[in-house]
Amino acid sequence: MGQLRRDPIVGRWVIVNVEKPKLPEQFEVTKHEFTQKANCAFCYGHENMTPPEIDAVRPPDTLPNTPGWAVRVVPNKFPALRIEGELNPEGIGIYDMLNGIGAHEVLIESPEHEKNLADLEVGQIRDFIDMACRRAISLTGDKRFKYILLFKNYGVDAGASLEHGHGQMIALPMIPKNAYEELEGAYRYFEYHERCIFCDIIRQEKQEKLRIVCENELFVAFCPFASRFPFQVWLISKQHSPYFCHMSAQEKNKLSEILKCSLLKIKKVLRDPSYNFILHTSPLDIKQAEGFHWYVEIMPKLTRVAGFEWGSGFYIVPTPPEVAAKFLREAEI
Amino acid sequence: MGQLRRDPIVGRWVIVNVEKPKLPEQFEVTKHEFTQKANCAFCYGHENMTPPEIDAVRPPDTLPNTPGWAVRVVPNKFPALRIEGELNPEGIGIYDMLNGIGAHEVLIESPEHEKNLADLEVGQIRDFIDMACRRAISLTGDKRFKYILLFKNYGVDAGASLEHGHGQMIALPMIPKNAYEELEGAYRYFEYHERCIFCDIIRQEKQEKLRIVCENELFVAFCPFASRFPFQVWLISKQHSPYFCHMSAQEKNKLSEILKCSLLKIKKVLRDPSYNFILHTSPLDIKQAEGFHWYVEIMPKLTRVAGFEWGSGFYIVPTPPEVAAKFLREAEI
Repeated sequence: MGQLRRDPIVGRWVIVNVEKPKLPEQFEVTKHEFTQKANCAFCYGHENMTPPEIDAVRPPDTLPNTPGWAVRVVPNKFPALRIEGELNPEGIGIYDMLNGIGAHEVLIESPEHEKNLADLEVGQIRDFIDMACRRAISLTGDKRFKYILLFKNYGVDAGASLEHGHGQMIALPMIPKNAYEELEGAYRYFEYHERCIFCDIIRQEKQEKLRIVCENELFVAFCPFASRFPFQVWLISKQHSPYFCHMSAQEKNKLSEILKCSLLKIKKVLRDPSYNFILHTSPLDIKQAEGFHWYVEIMPKLTRVAGFEWGSGFYIVPTPPEVAAKFLREAEI
Repeated sequence: MGQLRRDPIVGRWVIVNVEKPKLPEQFEVTKHEFTQKANCAFCYGHENMTPPEIDAVRPPDTLPNTPGWAVRVVPNKFPALRIEGELNPEGIGIYDMLNGIGAHEVLIESPEHEKNLADLEVGQIRDFIDMACRRAISLTGDKRFKYILLFKNYGVDAGASLEHGHGQMIALPMIPKNAYEELEGAYRYFEYHERCIFCDIIRQEKQEKLRIVCENELFVAFCPFASRFPFQVWLISKQHSPYFCHMSAQEKNKLSEILKCSLLKIKKVLRDPSYNFILHTSPLDIKQAEGFHWYVEIMPKLTRVAGFEWGSGFYIVPTPPEVAAKFLREAEI
């Protein structure tokens, strides 16, 4: 029988199949095939195939747009939004429009074409995270932007169009709906309880222990109680902070460790599935920031979203997070 | 350059690629392969492979659970929710739970295995719609349910697991998040303007003519201004009504006609794509119903939802609705 569970932050219900949980081996997983190495714009020696680099982690004796870099940031060649111009809101009858101003950057994780985040050294992951913070801080300085989103699509099923490991950062001229709902939901709780809902979630998860995947001094990884997708994992800092980009050097190290650990466990248990990586962080300078607590979400793509989900916003979750977490927790990596 | 557009009802932004619209032939479409005819539980003679029928359109001289029916409704063999029992809300620390009470029915569209909604006669479609209304009215009588959702997944890419054409109806013990947001958004507009936002949309669409796909005396089909997906189509009644199941016989006829027309155009222009069909209707007995106006949404599955969409709730639409509508409008069927 299904069990209905409500997400404590945004109020979304999910239906969890607690009776006959779907096991890892029962999911169909698309194999990743690497084919475009020769013409890959993200490999060493092809730096001129991308727009000129915005920033990079590279030895001081190398020039921009030449090999030698460890992490490289370039503008997206096919940006969803353009960086140039002023915002120009417009109405057409009852409809609202805005010209497409924003930033759309690509963060190339490493020079290694066939390695992905899970396979990189912790130090390489830290360089990537460090760069993401740097870019977020830089884009936040542009007063046209209200929200910065960092995400990553791994594998065709997760929407990746290029194989070489990369994240993307988009700066938006408004706070997007999903982020706003989360900020609002957390703030409502904060106003009522005078506590951060995420801190309360961490406390309960650490007590119950049922949904914990792994943990270190500064971070905990767990499968959320009202997961939308099977084997979904959140990585959250034990210290309250609304802002990802305010992390200390020590926190960046520890996040890199737990991220690698979580991704390797997902890779092992689910046979290297496609996944989306999404950073949830607060925009600066809004009152709701106070009640927010940044986290990273990893969503393996194992199920299809169909009419029921699109129509209702409900999700049917074939594997309870308690079962998923047990598999991940016990996986040896 | 992208253009940002806001959905006037729920406030969701989309990024529309108005510069280089993606054309129908540029989308990859998965071919449908029919393989399970022999063992299909929805074909004539296999009525005992489903749970006993709940209702059917069938000649008076035929018995339930035997061939002869035109439309047949059965409980879902693998229901997301169960019909038996009382609602029993429960809290676990900060989390909310509810036992999985609800209804999950399958509406088999016709006895013909390889025909889908687009290929049926208008009279057959009307029988299907008529049955959907009948089931919705019946389930609404059960006081445990607060919302009835009718949807249909066509093709593997849309999440269909069975080939034989069928819709699904789910009755839920709460108003789901997506429906609630729409009801709320429409009601906010209604309170402010004392007009239905959907009626205003119809008026503007009929004036601009840019996004109209087809039209008859009682219904209009158009691609919404802030479509989330390319070639998305709404079918909406020209007469204001919050409730799908209150349709007159004449309206059911006209809806069947415009539904067939729209589906055939989508099939022709996009080479028979997978799609989701979703009914948006008001639950009975809530104050927001007054500002709502039921409609049918058809979402061809041509794009993948990736990290950006999951993270932001923004959608990137490669084909502007004006371009999509022109292709659909001009397609000869």
